[in-house]
Amino acid sequence: MEKVNLEEKFAMFPDHWSPKVVGELNGQQVKLVKFQGEFVWHKHDQEDELFLVVKGHLRICLRDRDVDLDEGEFFIVPRGVEHQPVAEHEVHALIFEPASTLNTGDIRSEKTVEQLDRI
Amino acid sequence: MEKVNLEEKFAMFPDHWSPKVVGELNGQQVKLVKFQGEFVWHKHDQEDELFLVVKGHLRICLRDRDVDLDEGEFFIVPRGVEHQPVAEHEVHALIFEPASTLNTGDIRSEKTVEQLDRI
Repeated sequence: MEKVNLEEKFAMFPDHWSPKVVGELNGQQVKLVKFQGEFVWHKHDQEDELFLVVKGHLRICLRDRDVDLDEGEFFIVPRGVEHQPVAEHEVHALIFEPASTLNTGDIRSEKTVEQLDRI
Repeated sequence: MEKVNLEEKFAMFPDHWSPKVVGELNGQQVKLVKFQGEFVWHKHDQEDELFLVVKGHLRICLRDRDVDLDEGEFFIVPRGVEHQPVAEHEVHALIFEPASTLNTGDIRSEKTVEQLDRI
């Protein structure tokens, strides 16, 4: 039961594509992540996923269009929808999704993180 | 499946203490709300509630202490914990909580909003 300061938490880790858990509620988790470069195309069959951009510019590529997110904008990727986050420059993002969600969804790659750190 | 710009959404409503639904995922809702003044003391028996301050300074009074939140800070009020949001000046906040959550929890008052607008 402590408050979370997003800026302080982002300052605690340098790595990209490795979500950190900063809150948990109602079976859902709040995660912070730094993106840079291109992620793998993937989908989550059972989970909707919210991306809120805290800093930078994030492109979420869908198969039929791109969604461009600036600071203060969020997008919910519905379950089953293939997507690829792309960050030309470093992006700080907040993710809200079920505790069960794997970062690479239905794909296993070198970017898959099985066990998330809590910070 | 449209992105949401928080600033644009906050500009769409002037009223205080009346959460607006701006997103829905995994049985949870993302709500935006403007606070000003003191809310009623209440609790949610079955639902944890996250408050993220987007603008201003929010005090969440608990029975044993106060939690002060500035922009970019969030706090999760666990289920069953009595709390009272207080905003000396206007606050813009984002709330994550189950779709079933009533704003005044176990209390009915003139601030209770049964049916939330979606914007």
